[in-house]
Amino acid sequence: MLRKVLFGGLCAAVTLAVGILLGHFGIQQSDSTPSWVQDVAKDVDEDLIQRFISEVDNMEIQENLRELTKVPHMATTEGDRATVQYMLSRWQDPDTGLDHTWAEDYRVHLSFPDPNNPNTVTVVSSSDSVLYSAREKEKPYEAAQSDPAVVQPYAAYSPAGNVKGKLVFANQGKPSDYQLLNQTLDLAGTIAIVRYGGEGRAGKAINAAPYGVVGVLVYTDPLDINDGKMSEDNETYPHSWYMPPSGVERGSYNTDFGDMLTPYLAAKEETYRIPSKDIKGIPPIPTQPIGFEDAYALICELGGPEAPDTWQGGFNCTYNFGGPGFQPLSAFNNSDVKLDVYNKEELKASSNVMGVIRGSVEPDRYVIYGNHRDSWVHGAIDPSSGTSVMLELTRVLGRMVKQGTWKPRRSIIFGSWGAEEFGLIGSAEYTEEYFTKLSERTVAYINVDISVFANATLRASGSPSAQSVIFKSSKQVKIPGSDSTSVYDNWIRYSNRSSPVYGVIPNVGFLTGAGSDYAPFIHNLGITSMDISYTYDRTKTKARIYPAYHTAYDTFTYASKFIDPGFTSHQTVARTAGNVLMRLADSLLLPLNCSDYAESLEAFLHVALELYKQPLDAHSISLMPLQSAVTRFRSAASRLDQVIRDSDLASETPLKVRRINDQLMLLDRAFLDSQAFPKEYGFRHVFRPASVNGRFTFRSLADACANAMATGLASDWQKAHHHVSILSQAIAGAASILDDVI
Amino acid sequence: MLRKVLFGGLCAAVTLAVGILLGHFGIQQSDSTPSWVQDVAKDVDEDLIQRFISEVDNMEIQENLRELTKVPHMATTEGDRATVQYMLSRWQDPDTGLDHTWAEDYRVHLSFPDPNNPNTVTVVSSSDSVLYSAREKEKPYEAAQSDPAVVQPYAAYSPAGNVKGKLVFANQGKPSDYQLLNQTLDLAGTIAIVRYGGEGRAGKAINAAPYGVVGVLVYTDPLDINDGKMSEDNETYPHSWYMPPSGVERGSYNTDFGDMLTPYLAAKEETYRIPSKDIKGIPPIPTQPIGFEDAYALICELGGPEAPDTWQGGFNCTYNFGGPGFQPLSAFNNSDVKLDVYNKEELKASSNVMGVIRGSVEPDRYVIYGNHRDSWVHGAIDPSSGTSVMLELTRVLGRMVKQGTWKPRRSIIFGSWGAEEFGLIGSAEYTEEYFTKLSERTVAYINVDISVFANATLRASGSPSAQSVIFKSSKQVKIPGSDSTSVYDNWIRYSNRSSPVYGVIPNVGFLTGAGSDYAPFIHNLGITSMDISYTYDRTKTKARIYPAYHTAYDTFTYASKFIDPGFTSHQTVARTAGNVLMRLADSLLLPLNCSDYAESLEAFLHVALELYKQPLDAHSISLMPLQSAVTRFRSAASRLDQVIRDSDLASETPLKVRRINDQLMLLDRAFLDSQAFPKEYGFRHVFRPASVNGRFTFRSLADACANAMATGLASDWQKAHHHVSILSQAIAGAASILDDVI
Repeated sequence: MLRKVLFGGLCAAVTLAVGILLGHFGIQQSDSTPSWVQDVAKDVDEDLIQRFISEVDNMEIQENLRELTKVPHMATTEGDRATVQYMLSRWQDPDTGLDHTWAEDYRVHLSFPDPNNPNTVTVVSSSDSVLYSAREKEKPYEAAQSDPAVVQPYAAYSPAGNVKGKLVFANQGKPSDYQLLNQTLDLAGTIAIVRYGGEGRAGKAINAAPYGVVGVLVYTDPLDINDGKMSEDNETYPHSWYMPPSGVERGSYNTDFGDMLTPYLAAKEETYRIPSKDIKGIPPIPTQPIGFEDAYALICELGGPEAPDTWQGGFNCTYNFGGPGFQPLSAFNNSDVKLDVYNKEELKASSNVMGVIRGSVEPDRYVIYGNHRDSWVHGAIDPSSGTSVMLELTRVLGRMVKQGTWKPRRSIIFGSWGAEEFGLIGSAEYTEEYFTKLSERTVAYINVDISVFANATLRASGSPSAQSVIFKSSKQVKIPGSDSTSVYDNWIRYSNRSSPVYGVIPNVGFLTGAGSDYAPFIHNLGITSMDISYTYDRTKTKARIYPAYHTAYDTFTYASKFIDPGFTSHQTVARTAGNVLMRLADSLLLPLNCSDYAESLEAFLHVALELYKQPLDAHSISLMPLQSAVTRFRSAASRLDQVIRDSDLASETPLKVRRINDQLMLLDRAFLDSQAFPKEYGFRHVFRPASVNGRFTFRSLADACANAMATGLASDWQKAHHHVSILSQAIAGAASILDDVI
Repeated sequence: MLRKVLFGGLCAAVTLAVGILLGHFGIQQSDSTPSWVQDVAKDVDEDLIQRFISEVDNMEIQENLRELTKVPHMATTEGDRATVQYMLSRWQDPDTGLDHTWAEDYRVHLSFPDPNNPNTVTVVSSSDSVLYSAREKEKPYEAAQSDPAVVQPYAAYSPAGNVKGKLVFANQGKPSDYQLLNQTLDLAGTIAIVRYGGEGRAGKAINAAPYGVVGVLVYTDPLDINDGKMSEDNETYPHSWYMPPSGVERGSYNTDFGDMLTPYLAAKEETYRIPSKDIKGIPPIPTQPIGFEDAYALICELGGPEAPDTWQGGFNCTYNFGGPGFQPLSAFNNSDVKLDVYNKEELKASSNVMGVIRGSVEPDRYVIYGNHRDSWVHGAIDPSSGTSVMLELTRVLGRMVKQGTWKPRRSIIFGSWGAEEFGLIGSAEYTEEYFTKLSERTVAYINVDISVFANATLRASGSPSAQSVIFKSSKQVKIPGSDSTSVYDNWIRYSNRSSPVYGVIPNVGFLTGAGSDYAPFIHNLGITSMDISYTYDRTKTKARIYPAYHTAYDTFTYASKFIDPGFTSHQTVARTAGNVLMRLADSLLLPLNCSDYAESLEAFLHVALELYKQPLDAHSISLMPLQSAVTRFRSAASRLDQVIRDSDLASETPLKVRRINDQLMLLDRAFLDSQAFPKEYGFRHVFRPASVNGRFTFRSLADACANAMATGLASDWQKAHHHVSILSQAIAGAASILDDVI
């Protein structure tokens, strides 16, 4: 009986248990959890990051570069069109391509030399006989330089014209340089020779014209680019990375970015174009760049008083101002320099190649990664080092997508911009065409243009809020040839600063100007941006930039032999930038740190108070509103960080996560005010740095105060007051973005 | 045995069932559904809407109005400060108040007459003896008009000055009026008398000054406001709603909105202010409004040629141009009119009162409901009819919040704006201070200023995408005194149009200018806006506006006796606008319809093609880009509507709902382009209508084409081309907002 009872009880227990199990697992709960609940809480997958890092291949990058640099690919040329097709084919690859790829065309205003009528620089005697001719093309040291598609060195957007005059040396062509020269000489009718650096390209001619200068020659001084080295016999490329004597930096001579004929409008076929006479910010007088071998032949013959020490360069002669003109004992005595420029302006079709990986959870949030595609000549470093990194990044990510291993939380947009060399045209037109859409949805823009300037260390610039994700990513990547040293640890040795919060950390720079395609994103649209590359050991070179920059020597051979043999620095940049990209795309909480913005604002404020409080007070203009705004920003940032710390975001409503992410995403937008830089096209971000005596502060305020202190005019002090108000309102507005949302 | 088996089986079955039940209900599922899953899917609760509608009480509105109109409450006066306190106390009420309430102060540039030195208008003989004096204050018919706080009628922002000259009649003071007058008369040194209407207040003086006119008098013609009625004995207030002979419309004489000294900056204490000499858009010459009894005494004595028919008004005399000056047989023959204006400009503290109901699911999405608080005198209709409606709305909603019956999905912000009468100052400063935050988060702005002009029918204007929610709400509310006729059905009888999609529907107007506080929201920030009120039966009156507008007769008695006895039209507006508010705040899917925007764009395009295609084609300017943009917009809207129809939003990820809602919310933002109206402060929305021959089209294009057709200049046709591009880019950009998000 007992046994029966026990058996019965056992049976009952088993039956009950079966029932419980059936009930628990076998029946769909009426309020069953929707499948998306887990999806929306998904965070970045560290294993996938590691997989990405390990799959980035230096040899793939090398082969990308080889392909991209086969021919010169100046914007809109046949070589450029070939790279468009190449990008499309890579991003449409069934195994490693992206979800969606296409080309977008703009019709843009470019400037080219006349292939049938080259620009010339000559020295002509008073009887008009030619005593000296500057070289029209760079000297070939490998097959690349002999490619007929190599464009003659020229100053894009310099007007055509035939001018001659006595030569003067005007240092860097800064306003102060011409001012000094003008104290001694009558500049009317002269031709000025100036060196690169210290002033924007167009500025060198714009500053000259008011003094009556009729033409400008620009060269690169060996002191500035070659650490003084000049000899092609054993010092310059192909013996080293230094610029050969005939090398010439080409460039776009304009101060504004974007297509010049269609300000604030995308340059489509039918778009209204301003009359070209209304273009501003280009040379008013013929301008032409030359190699330092020609500059040497001219400068060392100049007469007149000796130029100041700071004007002296790397030539083994004394740099004189010019008589104007040459020394009495020179063979060029009494001769003029003649400048014949035949540049032509043309409307040309330029393409951006766009590629998309569709986000799975928040497709309406974009992380944009971009690099321009056009070069001046073969452009192995500028920009193809960046393009080959981008292609390696899309190959690895594209494969994960095609294999079904990975779908980013947010959408990723890759942009291969056209016509950057002519003034960031592709990216500027893109941001103009999709202005509101990009403003509303873009989490961040990552720019990798020249990916490797040199192979010493990472370099990064960006919005202050982007610092933390760059740090985190760089800590997870090792430097070339090491299993233990991280990119971060290496970086901090080369470039660091002391943060009141973090102690000594790598120094992330600011995005001050329009050096690359980040400018329209950060300055015009207020999209959190960053620019990432590998760069120099500054103890080893003083070169202004890598010496083959914008010359016909920027070739695959140059890159693989002197810049990054083995392409491991390229690989390191790809790994780091790709890590940043994946974190921005996949993190549940956006990896943007608003308190880091507070730190930068406080630093800028500190300098502003030190430099300007006293003079402003003396004109009854208070900096208190600015101080209050920065204090308010700091408090709001601290509170938001506290909310983030106190939240278990993975288990809370996805709308709360989205809310916080929107606060972080849209923070940079709050700094926009078109009154801040009314005369500068596309600059609206008030957190734009000026370096004053080596320290950074708010540029709009610094410029206004400097001007008021110089003129002493009450109206100029009023302008400074206006800028205090603009800054204060923008920063307070940004603080209110971070405040509790209601 | 069988029994035992059966019993055993039964027991087992029961045990199994118990187990299943236990397992199903008794054990928390390991992947149990988070509580927020239901919250995020919640839609608008129709029962709560019905409860709201039934609880809105006309007698409460009446008592609100009685309280608000006890004393004159012109901006920044003691009466205004009292209403600030009253609003605060109401919104802080523990039983019917809001979640959070506060006042925000701005320091704004206002203009007042000198109470110790009233403005005067006199007729003076050549020997300077005063032959006639216009009335300085309106005649009292009830205690209200004798309140010492009643401000003398004046033209705010008219400069002070003492001028005299021969009188001329200049109709409405339009440019064409002065032009016509100038063909016959020398206007130099004259004083012009003009009637209200046809031209903005400031324009009447701005247009006059170039002709040498030295002063302007403005009056309201009985034909325009009183259906011709003039007699105070039995025709005008207090016998009817018509304006008494001494009534004067006060007003702000300025063309731009917002604080004049702080363009694009919130007018805080320390904000930079432009020099007042740089203010634009205000009368350059002394200007003063007068009653029609004084205008009658002057106009009917004027000499010179008879004015054209269209210039004739309601007086029982012929309106002549003026000799200049009076008729030879007039007692005023050879006399001058003398205008002495002593207005003073002052910086004053003006408050917005803000109140918030915090959203429970998406607190970072705002529905803003606003109305100004300041009046010119007692302002029973303008604006207190709106304020009493707002207070009733917050009482009912506040009680539901305090009782815990209701929490809106999104946050609701109530704004009681200050200094609207001086140029929308409170709302403009608010939108400037929180520009980015409001741009990023605001779903819609609902404006109810004058809530009841008259008691015939609903009137609504708004962004095209707001039409559907206004229709839906108005269908759920009955008109006063009816259990069956909806506001919608009544409305369609008074004002309708034929829609190609919906057939005959009520006519929702456009927000063309800066008539009330919606202007900064829609025109400067691109926030979907609407303006709601009750209005006239146009078959019964031709009055330009309700006749006591801006006079000392706009009192509680006037409102309760002549505008809305029983306050049931007020109640109807409260119910309708409150319904719109609740739907915008609570709907899972935002009730904004993008296809309705497409319909309006197509209508505008249609008119543009008809009017401008031929002349533009003749100048080789194609409208194709505009046509393509509109077509693209329509397709994108249709696709998005299809996505919405195909989705079961309540069961999908809340991020998908949010994504679609963001597309709808941010649509209006895409229409902003500061190049569209470069000379008009705060106007950036390209969907701004112009009425051309009674039909609406794009204002920027219409103005540019009209100008080019008038001048025939190639450069003006180029400007028209520029506007085609601006419009096309904005509309195409808006279409891309509606496209699949990636």
